[in-house]
Amino acid sequence: MSTIVDAEAWAARIRAGDVRALSRAITAIENRDPAARDLLARLFPSTGAAYLIGCTGAPGTGKSTLVDRLATHYRHANDPVGVIAVDPTSPYTGGAILGDRIRMQGHAGDSGIFIRSMATRGRLGGLSAATADAALLLDAAGKRIVLIETVGVGQDEVDVVRLADCTIVLLVPGLGDDVQSMKAGLMEIADIFVINKSDHDGADRLDQQISAMLDLAPDLSAWRPPIVHTVASEGRGVDKLAEAIASFREHTEKSPAREARKIDHWKRRLLAMLESEISERVLTSPHGAEQLKALAKEVAERRKEPYTAVREIAARAGF
Amino acid sequence: MSTIVDAEAWAARIRAGDVRALSRAITAIENRDPAARDLLARLFPSTGAAYLIGCTGAPGTGKSTLVDRLATHYRHANDPVGVIAVDPTSPYTGGAILGDRIRMQGHAGDSGIFIRSMATRGRLGGLSAATADAALLLDAAGKRIVLIETVGVGQDEVDVVRLADCTIVLLVPGLGDDVQSMKAGLMEIADIFVINKSDHDGADRLDQQISAMLDLAPDLSAWRPPIVHTVASEGRGVDKLAEAIASFREHTEKSPAREARKIDHWKRRLLAMLESEISERVLTSPHGAEQLKALAKEVAERRKEPYTAVREIAARAGF
Repeated sequence: MSTIVDAEAWAARIRAGDVRALSRAITAIENRDPAARDLLARLFPSTGAAYLIGCTGAPGTGKSTLVDRLATHYRHANDPVGVIAVDPTSPYTGGAILGDRIRMQGHAGDSGIFIRSMATRGRLGGLSAATADAALLLDAAGKRIVLIETVGVGQDEVDVVRLADCTIVLLVPGLGDDVQSMKAGLMEIADIFVINKSDHDGADRLDQQISAMLDLAPDLSAWRPPIVHTVASEGRGVDKLAEAIASFREHTEKSPAREARKIDHWKRRLLAMLESEISERVLTSPHGAEQLKALAKEVAERRKEPYTAVREIAARAGF
Repeated sequence: MSTIVDAEAWAARIRAGDVRALSRAITAIENRDPAARDLLARLFPSTGAAYLIGCTGAPGTGKSTLVDRLATHYRHANDPVGVIAVDPTSPYTGGAILGDRIRMQGHAGDSGIFIRSMATRGRLGGLSAATADAALLLDAAGKRIVLIETVGVGQDEVDVVRLADCTIVLLVPGLGDDVQSMKAGLMEIADIFVINKSDHDGADRLDQQISAMLDLAPDLSAWRPPIVHTVASEGRGVDKLAEAIASFREHTEKSPAREARKIDHWKRRLLAMLESEISERVLTSPHGAEQLKALAKEVAERRKEPYTAVREIAARAGF
């Protein structure tokens, strides 16, 4: 009984934007604490008002700086802002709490902004699910702008930015050939391109390359991603970027594609949640973990074929 | 009947190392063609002899060049070699066949090497599952060394390298702060560090930084990852790297940790395969896709809480 009261009190504190309640909830998500699920279920009806902006780019492109500048921009307009910095490189070492504190100092005394790094532990559910849940929390906490930053190279990071309403792809001049080959994949998720460090050599050439690629893209009749030049470290171009985001938002809010995007997002998430649930059921069933290990051993020793093993796991778990 | 004969003929051609049969099979894996599953089940008993070497590093570190040099090294020792270049940035645009052809030219006329880029389409199963299946194919095809290269930043890429017997983490001097923060996560998967472009400024400093981190690591009594300096573009240091790999291989083959690593690998894979299977069952059941879409719409409109929707999907699918 008191647990239910506590859970409702916790949810109420999050709805009120309480920083400690939010932090505790995000930690619960990272740790796959069952309390997080209960909390999210309670808070879900209070969500749906936040605008999610994903910002993705390779290491060294200046994502954090740009996101901090954007956050400041929205704070000047008095919008409550949440920032989720997805750090897929620390699944082993936990969050980057110290880094968050340093970043918060740039917004000292401002209770209208919340910055948090996310890490994930282990395989199940993955980074994109945890980030999506954290975004829901910030949404329920009244953040009208939620900025999600991630190193945008892996499939899981692509899934992270896919949950955003607007996706910004960050590039910098002169990062070499791998970046060139990356752009083809990133192009298809970009709503806006940013060339950061645009005072460096090669910015114009990069602009031309992106334009040339966009010229070849099949379906840009509805929205052609603009290319915004920034020098985030000096705050240059950030207003222009915010304008581009506002234009995109206005464009999509009129468009039937927006609803389709939201439905697609939830289709993917519901399947991912189902998958996590199934794996958890296997692992938490009586002897489930032991049986899995025994089957894995048989497969590793080539005594059993993997698909046969999967069928046995499914049968034992009653699927 | 003739399909079964064909499938067995296909499997036989792969066991014989036939390049076109292999290519067709990897395409089938990428496309989630059910034929791929049947083929893998047939070939599974012929696997287990390959040594899998994962090579991961940020864009611009020279992974492909280093992997090509290593491949050449092993070819000189007459080992059949397979290379899987995981390109998570092209889930939307398909494989990089042209790039593969260019790379193969460096090994022209050598039928003992097979190079292939992998892409994945869509969310289900993911990159790591497809890569693991491709590695099994190359294993069955008699490749004694399978090199897997990937941009190592996302969780899915970490899962990719986790399937390797030996993981090489590639760094280069002077790639900025994000790389510094990355090393903490990468350190825990590295069996060997490579400082490539070691003729650039800052190589010694990077070496010291890695050493300092290793000094702080809790459990390196069994194996302390060596730091190998290379200039892959000139082939410098590649022999030293191959020696380090051989040392690690010798070290682990004596170690009980090797079996535990294989079992852990198959535990993760069996669960991932189960998850894919469950999602596919939902999507391919009668009206499954429509029902999922209808539920996703209800959730997107906040008329239903996501966990309730997941329970409904599970109940309908008989889980």
